[in-house]
Formats: sequence, C-alpha cells, structure tokens
Amino acid sequence: MILRIDRLAIELPAPDHPSPNSASAVQELLGGKFGEMSTLMNYTFQSFNFRGRSQLKPFYDLIANIAAEEYGHIELVSHTINMLLTGSTTRGNDPSDTPLEHATDARQHYHFIASGQTALPIDSQGNPWNGTYVFSSGNLKLDLLHNFFLECGARANKIRVYEMVDDPVAKEMVGYLLVRGGTHIVAYAKALEALSGVDVGKLLPIPDISNKRFPEARKHEAKGLHQVMYRMSPNDYREISQIWRGPHPEDGSELRVVDGPPEGGPVPLHPEEPQLTSPIGPDGVDSGMLKDIAERLFGKETVRR
Amino acid sequence: MILRIDRLAIELPAPDHPSPNSASAVQELLGGKFGEMSTLMNYTFQSFNFRGRSQLKPFYDLIANIAAEEYGHIELVSHTINMLLTGSTTRGNDPSDTPLEHATDARQHYHFIASGQTALPIDSQGNPWNGTYVFSSGNLKLDLLHNFFLECGARANKIRVYEMVDDPVAKEMVGYLLVRGGTHIVAYAKALEALSGVDVGKLLPIPDISNKRFPEARKHEAKGLHQVMYRMSPNDYREISQIWRGPHPEDGSELRVVDGPPEGGPVPLHPEEPQLTSPIGPDGVDSGMLKDIAERLFGKETVRR
Amino acid sequence: MILRIDRLAIELPAPDHPSPNSASAVQELLGGKFGEMSTLMNYTFQSFNFRGRSQLKPFYDLIANIAAEEYGHIELVSHTINMLLTGSTTRGNDPSDTPLEHATDARQHYHFIASGQTALPIDSQGNPWNGTYVFSSGNLKLDLLHNFFLECGARANKIRVYEMVDDPVAKEMVGYLLVRGGTHIVAYAKALEALSGVDVGKLLPIPDISNKRFPEARKHEAKGLHQVMYRMSPNDYREISQIWRGPHPEDGSELRVVDGPPEGGPVPLHPEEPQLTSPIGPDGVDSGMLKDIAERLFGKETVRR
Amino acid sequence: MILRIDRLAIELPAPDHPSPNSASAVQELLGGKFGEMSTLMNYTFQSFNFRGRSQLKPFYDLIANIAAEEYGHIELVSHTINMLLTGSTTRGNDPSDTPLEHATDARQHYHFIASGQTALPIDSQGNPWNGTYVFSSGNLKLDLLHNFFLECGARANKIRVYEMVDDPVAKEMVGYLLVRGGTHIVAYAKALEALSGVDVGKLLPIPDISNKRFPEARKHEAKGLHQVMYRMSPNDYREISQIWRGPHPEDGSELRVVDGPPEGGPVPLHPEEPQLTSPIGPDGVDSGMLKDIAERLFGKETVRR
Amino acid sequence: MILRIDRLAIELPAPDHPSPNSASAVQELLGGKFGEMSTLMNYTFQSFNFRGRSQLKPFYDLIANIAAEEYGHIELVSHTINMLLTGSTTRGNDPSDTPLEHATDARQHYHFIASGQTALPIDSQGNPWNGTYVFSSGNLKLDLLHNFFLECGARANKIRVYEMVDDPVAKEMVGYLLVRGGTHIVAYAKALEALSGVDVGKLLPIPDISNKRFPEARKHEAKGLHQVMYRMSPNDYREISQIWRGPHPEDGSELRVVDGPPEGGPVPLHPEEPQLTSPIGPDGVDSGMLKDIAERLFGKETVRR
Amino acid sequence: MILRIDRLAIELPAPDHPSPNSASAVQELLGGKFGEMSTLMNYTFQSFNFRGRSQLKPFYDLIANIAAEEYGHIELVSHTINMLLTGSTTRGNDPSDTPLEHATDARQHYHFIASGQTALPIDSQGNPWNGTYVFSSGNLKLDLLHNFFLECGARANKIRVYEMVDDPVAKEMVGYLLVRGGTHIVAYAKALEALSGVDVGKLLPIPDISNKRFPEARKHEAKGLHQVMYRMSPNDYREISQIWRGPHPEDGSELRVVDGPPEGGPVPLHPEEPQLTSPIGPDGVDSGMLKDIAERLFGKETVRR
Repeated sequence: MILRIDRLAIELPAPDHPSPNSASAVQELLGGKFGEMSTLMNYTFQSFNFRGRSQLKPFYDLIANIAAEEYGHIELVSHTINMLLTGSTTRGNDPSDTPLEHATDARQHYHFIASGQTALPIDSQGNPWNGTYVFSSGNLKLDLLHNFFLECGARANKIRVYEMVDDPVAKEMVGYLLVRGGTHIVAYAKALEALSGVDVGKLLPIPDISNKRFPEARKHEAKGLHQVMYRMSPNDYREISQIWRGPHPEDGSELRVVDGPPEGGPVPLHPEEPQLTSPIGPDGVDSGMLKDIAERLFGKETVRR
Repeated sequence: MILRIDRLAIELPAPDHPSPNSASAVQELLGGKFGEMSTLMNYTFQSFNFRGRSQLKPFYDLIANIAAEEYGHIELVSHTINMLLTGSTTRGNDPSDTPLEHATDARQHYHFIASGQTALPIDSQGNPWNGTYVFSSGNLKLDLLHNFFLECGARANKIRVYEMVDDPVAKEMVGYLLVRGGTHIVAYAKALEALSGVDVGKLLPIPDISNKRFPEARKHEAKGLHQVMYRMSPNDYREISQIWRGPHPEDGSELRVVDGPPEGGPVPLHPEEPQLTSPIGPDGVDSGMLKDIAERLFGKETVRR
Repeated sequence: MILRIDRLAIELPAPDHPSPNSASAVQELLGGKFGEMSTLMNYTFQSFNFRGRSQLKPFYDLIANIAAEEYGHIELVSHTINMLLTGSTTRGNDPSDTPLEHATDARQHYHFIASGQTALPIDSQGNPWNGTYVFSSGNLKLDLLHNFFLECGARANKIRVYEMVDDPVAKEMVGYLLVRGGTHIVAYAKALEALSGVDVGKLLPIPDISNKRFPEARKHEAKGLHQVMYRMSPNDYREISQIWRGPHPEDGSELRVVDGPPEGGPVPLHPEEPQLTSPIGPDGVDSGMLKDIAERLFGKETVRR
Repeated sequence: MILRIDRLAIELPAPDHPSPNSASAVQELLGGKFGEMSTLMNYTFQSFNFRGRSQLKPFYDLIANIAAEEYGHIELVSHTINMLLTGSTTRGNDPSDTPLEHATDARQHYHFIASGQTALPIDSQGNPWNGTYVFSSGNLKLDLLHNFFLECGARANKIRVYEMVDDPVAKEMVGYLLVRGGTHIVAYAKALEALSGVDVGKLLPIPDISNKRFPEARKHEAKGLHQVMYRMSPNDYREISQIWRGPHPEDGSELRVVDGPPEGGPVPLHPEEPQLTSPIGPDGVDSGMLKDIAERLFGKETVRR
Repeated sequence: MILRIDRLAIELPAPDHPSPNSASAVQELLGGKFGEMSTLMNYTFQSFNFRGRSQLKPFYDLIANIAAEEYGHIELVSHTINMLLTGSTTRGNDPSDTPLEHATDARQHYHFIASGQTALPIDSQGNPWNGTYVFSSGNLKLDLLHNFFLECGARANKIRVYEMVDDPVAKEMVGYLLVRGGTHIVAYAKALEALSGVDVGKLLPIPDISNKRFPEARKHEAKGLHQVMYRMSPNDYREISQIWRGPHPEDGSELRVVDGPPEGGPVPLHPEEPQLTSPIGPDGVDSGMLKDIAERLFGKETVRR
Repeated sequence: MILRIDRLAIELPAPDHPSPNSASAVQELLGGKFGEMSTLMNYTFQSFNFRGRSQLKPFYDLIANIAAEEYGHIELVSHTINMLLTGSTTRGNDPSDTPLEHATDARQHYHFIASGQTALPIDSQGNPWNGTYVFSSGNLKLDLLHNFFLECGARANKIRVYEMVDDPVAKEMVGYLLVRGGTHIVAYAKALEALSGVDVGKLLPIPDISNKRFPEARKHEAKGLHQVMYRMSPNDYREISQIWRGPHPEDGSELRVVDGPPEGGPVPLHPEEPQLTSPIGPDGVDSGMLKDIAERLFGKETVRR
C-alpha cells in the first residue's frame, strides 16, 4: 500500500510563458519508453514479482523503495507539462471566437482535445505509454542489468529534452531528475556489484557527460543530493542501506540513506481554463455555483462561507 | 509524493493449487481496460491535472485519495496472479527435462517467457495496458461521470472473473475489491450529486446484482467495510469528508472516513522457481552465493551469518 | 445516410451446440485484417473520398453500393458468433458456483469478460480491428487493385475458417459469404477491366479452389446468386449496371443487377445469460421489472400489458 | 441490412480556403476515441449483441436506430475533412516541381501519402481508430450508462475542435452534430430513466455549456431539431417512441419521432488532384480516356457520349 | 544466410541543407505500411514459408532474390534520412545553450530524443513498423497478387514523397527506387502471368504516371536499369531467369539477369553530433580517448597510431 | 547491400511430430521483444546510424557484422516453426471435411488463417513485432550497453522456450542459438570493455546458468564454436578482429575470427498442404499445371521436362 503526500519533490518555478510544443517534448519524459511511467512501473512490478525475497531482502528493498520515489517523478513531469500548457490558448467564454486557434498548429492535439491543456500518459509523438515497456524476468541479475540500462537510457532522454526546451520550469525539473535518476543508476550498479563483484559503476557516466555540466543539476549535487537515497516508507525497506553505501562511483563521496521523503515543495495551483470548460463551463466557477455545491455538501442551513 | 508500506490491503490465503489459466483470467483485472492499472492511472492523472483546485478542494481531495488506494489494488491483483502461477511448472535444475512443458498449452505464454511465472501489465489476452485507457478531460463533471462509469465497468469485470475462477485466493481478492470498488462507485456518485443535485446513486447496483450475493464480499460488508473511505495520507486530503458523508445509497448505513490505511496483511513470500532462473540460476540461492554477496556488501571480515 | 432494416441477409440455422473456440475462429472474419469490418470500411471510406465523381460515376456507384452490402456481412458474422457463444457457460443466478468455469480455458476471454458472450470488433487472437486496415489512396486503379486483392485475401480466410469450424451455423454463413464475396471479386475485376482493358477475371479463382466445392456455397450458386449485384439503395447507385454486366468470368453466366436488398431472414433472438447479467441481473428479466419499466415509459395509469 | 442514400444529412458550405492542419484536428471527430466511428460502432455492436430483445424491444430499437443515424455522421465529418484538404497543394502535372511541398510541414502526412488529400479512420495525431473503443458488455444498464458517457465525451471533443477550427464548413458540421449528438445524450438519459427511475437528464449539459452558445447549433435548435429522433428505417424500430417522448430535459419542449431520414443535402463533388494521381494520373481524366472506358463498358459501337 | 557488403546500391549526393521535416516524410518510405521494411519482410517471410519449392523453384528463387535486393533499399532510405538530419541542430558542447531548440517544433521528436538525428523503423507520423504489414498466406497466386499490389502501393508512396521533398539526396534516392521498385512490379506481373496466363503487366503503370516523368528515374531507365534483375547471391537463385525474361511491359525492351549486385557507392560518413552525445560525449571523440581505446584493444605496448 | 545464400546456418533435424502449440511458443524467439527480429533490426539500424565511423571503425564493423549473422537466425527460427506446423492438420482436398478442425483449439489461429501453417513476424501471443523494439540512441556506450542487455534478455527467452518445447528440431535450433547468441554477448562485453576498461564479461552468464547445461549447446562448444566470430562479408568488416580477440570470459579459451559464413545445412523442403491451398489449390500441384506453367515460361515448343 501507499500513503500519498500532497507535496512535490521540489518546488517548480513559474514558466516564462506558455509553450505547447515544449510541453509535447516533455511528454517523452512522462509516457515515453524511457519516461518516468516506465521507471515507476518496472520497479513496481519487479517488487511485486520478487521471488526468494527472504534470502535476498536488500535487493527487494532497494527495488521497492526506488519504485516509490518514481511516483514523485511522474508527478513532477506532469505538473511541468501542465504549467507549460496553462494559458496557451485564449481565455474567454465565447466558443465562437475560435479561442483554441493556436492549438491547431501545435504538435500535440491531444493536449487540447483529450485533456484540458494538461498531461497525459503519452509520449512526444502522442503514442500511449504501454505495458510492453515493463521488464520483469524474475532473474535478479537480468532485472538489475535491465534497470541499469533503463536508467541510462532515461538519462539520455532527459539530456536531450533539456537541450530542446528553453524554459526555467522544464530545466529545473530535468536538472533535479538528472540527479535523482543518477542515484538510481548508481543504486543498480551497486546492486549488480553486490551480486557479481563487477564494478559496473566504472562505466559511468552514460552518456558520456557529467551532471556537472547542467547548472540545474550541479546546484543539487553541490549540496550532496546525489549521495542520498531517500527511504520512502514510514517503517519498511531498511535494508537498502546494505547496498546503498560506500563511495559514489563518480566523485567518491560517501553514500547515505535519509529516512523519509525530501521536504519538497507545494503542488502548483493550475488556474481555470474556461474556454476548455475546465474545471467547469465557459463562465468559470462562480460563487453561486460554489454556494449550490456547498449546500448540497453540507445542507442548506449550515452553509455560511 | 508517496510513502510505501510493505503490507497488502488484506491477507491473501494460499491457493488450492497452481492454475495458470486462472492467472491469465485474473490479468484482466490488472492490465485490462477496466483493470486496476486503469483506475489507478485515471485518478492519478486527474489529480495531477486538476484545474481550479483552490475552489473545488473536496473534489480534488477525493480523486487524489482514491488514486492512492488503487495502488494497493494493483498490488493485490498482482500477488494473486503470482500465487496462482507459483509451482505451475516442474521445479528442477535440469533444463533438458522440459520442465516448462505444461506452459506450452497454457493460455498465457508471457507468464513463462517474459516473467518468472508472475504478473505483467497485460490483460487476459496478453494485450498490454496502455495510456489510451486514461481519461482526463479537465471538465470536472465529465471526469466524475467517467469515473462512475469506469468503476461500474470494472465491477462487471470483477464479477465475471470471480465467476470464472474457482480458487480461494482469487475469490478472496475479488470479494474484497468488490467492496472497495463499491465505495469508489458511491464516492463518484456522491461527488456528481454534490456538483449537480442528481441522485445518481439510485442507479446502483450496476450491473444489477448486489455485493451481498458474493460470500467473500458479504463478510466485509457485514463489518461495515462498504461504509469506510480510508484517508490514505499522513496529513492531506482531509476534505474528502465533505463528500464522503450521509447515507450509503444501497443500504442507507452511514458513511465515515477512517484516517490512515487498513491494517492489511503481510506481503506473500513467493518461493524460488529455479527452472526459470528466478531469482537466481537453476541450482537456486545457495549459502555459498549468499556468503559471497554478503562479503561484497559488508566486506569479508565482517561477514558472520 | 443509411436506412437500416431489421433483417439479416439470410436466415441463420440454430447451431448444433455452443462452441466458444469456434466463435473465436469466426472472429477473424469479423475483426481480422481481412474480415468484414475491413471490407465495409475500405469501400465506405473510398466512397467518401472519391475524386472526380462526375466523370467516373459508375465506379463511384459500384464502390458505394458494395460498401452498403458489406454492412449486412458484419451483421451476419456477428450473429453467428453470438449463436456459437450462447449457452456456453452454466446459466444460473448464484455467482459463487463458478458458472463461467469453462470460459477459463477458452481461447477468447474477452467474449466472457468484455462482452456478454457476444461478438466484438477483434480478430481470432483478440487483437482489435484498426484503421490501418483501410486503404484509400485516391488513385482509382490502385484502389480497385487493392479491393480485388482484399476480396481474394478475405476469401482465403473464409475458406480456412470454414475448414476449422464444424457447425452448421458457421458453415451456412461462410457458404453465403463465399458467394457474395465472390461477386465483389468479380465486380472489382470488371471495374479494373473497364479502366484498363485487362481481363483480370481470368486470374480467378484465387485461391485456386472453386466455390462449387463448398456445399453451402454451391446451393446458392445453383440458384444464380453469384450473378446478382443487389442495388442497396432506394434510388441511387444506378450506374453499377454499367460495370456489373456481361458474362461471369468463372462460368460465363450473365450478370444482372437486382434492385433492393435480398429478402433475407429474421434477426436471431439471443436469449438471456443471467450469470453474465445480460441483459439484466442474475435473476433475469422478471415481470415486476418489466411492469416498472412500462410504468416509467407510459405512466402508471396507462400500463396494462 | 442497410440501404444507402446518396445524400448527406446537411448541405456543407464551401470552405473559405484549404486548411490541412484544421483537417487534422477534425480527424479527432472521425477516428478518435470519442469520434463518430466510435459512436457508430458501439451502438452497431450493441444492437447485434442485444440479449433478451423480445422483452426489452424499445431499448433495442433505440440503440439500433441511433446506430443508423451515426453512419450519416462519419460521412459528414469525412466530407468536411475532404473539403478542407482539397486544393491544399499545388495542382499540376510535373512531379519534379515539388507540388506537395506545403505538405511537408503539415501535421498529418498520411493525408498526403496514404490518401489523396482525404479522410482516414485515424485521429488528430494519426493513430488509427481501433476496436478497443467499442464497449458492449451485454448488461443493458451498463451499456446505456456507457453510451450516455460516450456521447458527453464526444460532445466535449466537438466543442474543442469547434474552438480550434475557424472555417465555415467545420463550424457548420460541428454545429449540426452538437444538436444531433445532443439528442443521443437525451435518448440514453431517457433510456436510463426508463430502466431505473433516475432522472439522469438533470446532469445536462455536460460539459457545462449550452448548445445555444454555438450559433451554428442554435439555428437548428431554434427550428426544433433537438426535439426530433429520426426513425432511420423503412419499417422497423418503431418502439423508439416509447422512450423518445416527454419533455426535453434542457428546455422542456416536447420530443417527437420523425419517420425517415432528414432531407439532407447533396454529397459534395471533390475535384481531381492530378498531382496526387487522384483519381487518375497527372494529366487528369481526359476525354480520350473516358471514351476508352466507355467503349469497354458498352462496346465500341454503342458509345456516343 | 546472408553476406553483407559495405556499399550502398548507389552513391547518395550531399543534401542541400538539413531538413528535419523532409526526413520525417521520408520515414514513410522506410517504416510505413508501404515502406521498404514492408517489402523486405514480406518477401523474406514468403521465401522462408514457401511450400512445394521443389516443384515451383523459379517462383521461390524470384521471391527470395527480390527480398535480398530490398535489404539494400532500407539501407538507402535510412542513409537519406540520416543525411537530411545531420546538422539540423546546433553543434556544441554546452547543453545549457538549448542546442536542440529547433527540434522542438519539428514534426518528428523521436529523431532527436530516441535517435541521434538518424533513422528509425517508424513511419512519417511516428508510428512503428509492425508485423501486421507482412502477408504470407502460403497460396502462391494470392501471395504474388499481394506483392504486385504492395509494389504498386509503394510506388504511389514514393511518388508522393518525391513531390513533397525538394532536396537532391531525397530525389536521387526516390528516383533510383522508382526504377528498382518498377522491376519488382514487373517481376510479380510476369510471375502471375506464368502462373495464370493473364497479362497483368498491361495494367501498368499504377498509378498512371510513367517513371519517365521523373528526371532522377529517367536517367537510370535511359541506361536500361529497368530491364535488369540483379541476382543477389554468389551461387543461388539462378532460376529467376525463367520468369525474368521477355519484353518489358511498358517499353518492350528485353529483360535480362545480371549476376551479382550493382557496383553501388560508398556508405556515407555521418559526422559526429556532440550535442546529442553521438557517438561519444559533448566534447567529441578526442585523440586521448582513441589512444585509451587502442591500448585496451591492442595492449599498451603495441599502440603506435 | 547483401548477398543471400540458399543455406541455413545448421541442418535442422526432422521434428518428431507436428506440434502447433510448440510452434506458437517458438514464435517468441522470432517476433517477440527479445526475438531474432529484434536483434537483427537493432544492429542493422545501429550500423546505418553510426556517427563518427572513421574514428571508431572496429565498433562499426562489429555491429554491422553481427547484424548480418542475425539474418541467419530469423531464418533458422522460422524454418523450425514451419517444420513444427507441417502436417498439423488433415491433408486432403475436401474442404467440407473440416480438415483444420484441430486448429480451432490451437493457441495460434494466425498460423492457420493468415499463413499456410508457417511462421509470421509475431510473438507467442500473436502480437506483431514492432519498431519500438529497436534502440538506436547514437551514443555508442549506451547502444553497446543496450545490446549487451538485449542479448542477455534474448538468452533468457531462449532458455525458457527450450524448457517448454520437447521436440528435437526446436532443441537443436535453440542449442545452436544459445552458442551463437553467447558470442554476441561476449562481443558486446568486449566492446564495452574496449570503450570503458570495465570487464563486463565477468557478469556472465546471465541468467546464471551455463550453456554447458544444454546438451544441444554443449556439443557445439566442445568444438569451439563459442570462440568463433564469423566475418559475414566477402571483403568488409575486417576490424572486428580488433575487438573479437583475447580470452573468452567464461572458459578462457582464445577467441578467433573465421572469414565467411558457417558451412551450414540445406534449406528444408516444406511439403504442400493442399487443404490450406498452399502453394496451390486443394488438388495440389499436378503435372498438368506444371506443364502449363512451363509452356508459359519457355514457350510451348521448348517444353520437354
């Protein structure tokens, strides 16, 4: 089971301006083959499907715990997309003014038709995320090798989307995920080493570019964020510390486990887009409607907002 | 963000015997269009994408909170599948004995080739779950109507899989999910009523068969489980109680919010299947290997297990 | 636009017995790449998309008119599937009796979970029909060549399904469709000949087996059904007779247009399957419920059925 | 079976100018999850698959009859797409002039490569319509709830495409479909009410914007078009009048059945696009070719056009 | 088995300038339903699956041999795509400069995220090539008819992409493939004629435009390239000459077999794109790295490049 | 370009008996995510897309050359499937005898409807191979890591299919592919080591079971086949020897390059299945037909076979 916290892993800055095609590019990091849906679901299923857990508990704990952090990553990417899309069409209440005209030439029509200018589990070309992206062979060494590769592939995608999108909200999000994804690469390298004795970490970085080249990642690494594995559970998954220990393969700094999630930042408020009838019709949420709702919720007599 | 708890929502009983084709049927409840992956991801994305949250907080809280409970449901279905598959081929360490011979006639080859006799994000025919199953229009009334329909469709699927599979682990799991899914149906009915004044709950049950007809659901309802909405968060989503209140539409009993998750049961231990090299090779996890791993994890000198 | 007639193209005989795996095989003729959904949709889209209609009216009329007949074919295949599935599980009103137990080993779980033992737009392996099966290039010669090929491919599929399924309802349906599909092959051959002068009909039959080898087809050809093109419209598509004329390429008999649809047979009544809550719950449609419905439809006072 | 009529449901006005990206947006209303292919095929399959028809005839008639009207809607959307695409590249007969240059930057390459600047069964991102969009559970209440939801979702899509596309042909088409789709929403609401007694119509409009806000819809409602259910059959489906009766839920006006289809308008003539070899090669349909064809069709001696 | 030759079928000219949207259009000729992946894989599978080979050897040889030539065609299209994409973003080594900014508005994000500005087995809309595009019925006449149609459809696609893309490398590639694809059309026509006696070649050209209208094709035909079938094998497939003989159906010139492949041209060198870390990181392949690699390959002492 | 040789990599033994469900399992090794289509196409595209080839020639040569060997592997798997399917239905020429009756309960209907009891580019569940299985990032280290993982995943699949299928033809094929796939694993390990200095080969075997445990692989390794890289080209790819050298990571034996392909064995003759009209109609290829064909091929006067 999970408990959900109404916070994001970091605070996201306001975007410079609406940018639908950037939002489309960022979708690759959400619903692409190497997007956060994939990392989340791969580790989630591998944790469900773990055989021989009693004998190999540290490995189980590691995979299950990373899965939990990934949930926070689909969240972060989704809110970035939402912020890039907010305000990208003309707000108003007259549908015959063609308020969504700009959307017609945008790369991603689903953002304007299927959703209310918000994220979907699709990639940058509009293809849906799907379950063939999940690998769960049951052989531990093979699953760990897969995860190590998957994280490296995800890192390549993040770097390229970072290079495509010139907006602070996207750069901030990717910078953070490069660091956190980096810890997952190291974690799976350490796990492979524990299993086989091979120092796979020496292959890093893959691709051959350091996180230090990205200002928005560098600032987090300067604070040691790349050395931290969060234990995303009130009481469980404590044996991750048997794998997450020793020196970081890239800078030799000491790895450490932090109990509990990062402090994080607030979940952004996404304003109404009345021309998309989101969340309500073209005239927006007015106080009369709220009063009606409140009366239904609390009974007529008790409403006094 | 989420915190993960290493417990299942209920304790699953041991299956009577391995049953691969039953496991294949149960996959529909995991990765099918109306499976738990769909309920999880629909509400998760709707919560990310909610516009006008500050004005409509109770609705946001409700959707976000139900999303959190759904995670526990993909978990429950996955472990049921794993238990039905465990032991379904001949354990052994000689691959030339054709130990997976029975798998050749099984309905679901992926269970034996892609996974180590465990769950995958696929449906009963082997088609992968995909993102087109997520609906997130941004219009609150439409999203709620969708969710109400989705839960009713999911209920129909659960009933039919229950009727296909004659094994206590599956019946126990479905019985529980009928009750919990039933609370989600009611929650979306209440939310639609709050928004519009229409008593949608009077349409229930859909399909036209009461949960009371299922012994494994009836026992939970007898204890009032259908009246409870768990608040799946340490501190957030408190406004669900503004919607989750008043009488249950089917039996008139009083709805109530319980803070925190159900007590639940242990996560099942899935034994090794060495013929599938799961988790390690055909000779299984032996003590020499564990000693090697431990030495790598802790250093040679400190190992003394 | 279309008008719909509540009749099937032929009367379907009762099946010998329920036969779920046969129903699964027949799905290929409905939702497969060469199924009736494909012929229907190919010609329908080609008729919408026809350029230069005023100059090439006989070709337009032919394609549009054949499209209309194909609708009757998806109908015929669907009802055959429904009849093969009816009664294939244990009728009853206690879900805990595992009434769908036989479905667990059936090839096609969707028939029992997604539908109420009825047809779906899928193929024999459960893959959905999809729009990539439609070819509409806009070049008339190429579209006609496609259609000629498509019909020959569809014929091959029909022959093979006929050889798989030993039930009178399936054999009757395929026999009829072999004859009608045969007329479409000839029609496209004639159209290609009109356009190019090449006697493509001399390639027939493809595959190299005559309809006369199939008793259920032979009986229709004995009555001349292979010489007839029905004009499926009250007043339109009259110029089909400019193409559908002259000798049949296989037996030399004279082709002729019949105005209007075949007389056909009744649409089969599919009985309730209460264990699938189809159409209502497990206790079936009872007179009390019908009375309630009637009162709602007509008002309390006027009900007297 | 069906009879086809060579008329559209309304007369479509000429577009202002070719507009390929608008055509791409309109594709969502044809081949999208909530497009007209989906409404057509959902009701068509539900009508084939209806169990217990003899007892619940009005519901069968309603679903079967609406299916028939939907055919006219895929037609209408397809012709709108064709008109928006006609003339969107440079007409001519020299392929080395790069006549399709503008297509290279268009959103939808399939319109120029797979088709001759015409409609395809795909959505706005080029993903094909597929059979997973069809819901046919066999449980009447669930199927009706689905249809009610599907129509509301389709309405949301129509509104958004209307807001994207600033061309009279698209606005006219959507305006009409908003009204006709509106009658289907009401029809399913009435059917649900008949079955359950719940006045689902009070939820309308979904999304929360009236058809009256759309000039191209308003004009039809002013004439009462929203009160009419066409009976799309020469002789059948007469019991729709048992459900389609009483007051319209939004304006209280009286619902009524009209026997037969709307008068409609002519099927547009789509001119040649010789650079796409549509319908013939780059030099177009010339009289010599027509003469050759005619001679083949009628024999040399009888040709005298 | 195959032997591979490090040469292309022709020498490709340098492109005028990078042109990402043109590259996207050209993808249709690689991974589209009618792209070279389809022709390659259709004939490859038909050759594996040929029944009755001993009696029908010339047909087997023809299909197997054409399959071998098609490999050279996926190569040619892929390199064209690569050349159109090379240099399409800003080369450099600082990722924070948004070097891929231009990619954000490009039609095909996969070219910049999934690949290093190179070809993928996808079509012009980003949908992946898939195995449903392969037809292998086992009936020889039907398979040949399919292949004849497939090649005509592929020809239509080539013509349209030629008309979209105004760059010498694309026009040169398409011009050559029109001629070579043309020989395959003729080959399947001849094979059908051998089997049935029908002179299918008289239907040509399909679409109705001669290769002579394309300067880049005309120059090859002037040299007789359309009369040649290459025998793509050291020692096998000699019986193709029993089918590939007699007059060309379009110009009557004599067909002839050439033993061995065309002389061809060099495989283009694709330069580094360091901003995409292709092939190595952002600072490119430097001599230090090469020295390190060489030392690992040859041992420290022997390196002296 | 390629040259094709009409030989298989090894001689395949006759199967014990037809075995359609085994053939279905073997399909995973052909068209599955980790099947031979995937290895073939991954390396083929990576070789087309290689940037910086002049500086990194040994890596290019290695990838391009392994791609060429993989073609021989799709061939081997396909013929195995064909042999397992041959004779699996009742041969005969009367379609009304239900000769394909056994196919109705088989797992893979496509084998009997879409193909003539032969291989297709699909996996064990009937899902088509597709281009999303190809990874070609352009970053050499990442691509090599992918290939190393892909080969290990493919090895896991081979082992499991070997354990499912008890027929000599399948076991022989898998035994050979385990050895050859093993050389590809080593090759990519060596290439990664050359690039990074990390001895990735020490991770092997993955999964943790030696090829020596499989009699049909052991016999090849006893002859040193695991030490050999075939150079699959008349004159090219010579620099593979710079990577393929030194000791084998599992047994320390010396690696060596062999110029040219293995000697191999004959391509199996697949007999007619007349009930599937393969290759001709139900009465098979008779001498009259062959005479007709020969006359068409050679002219009447010259036929004297």
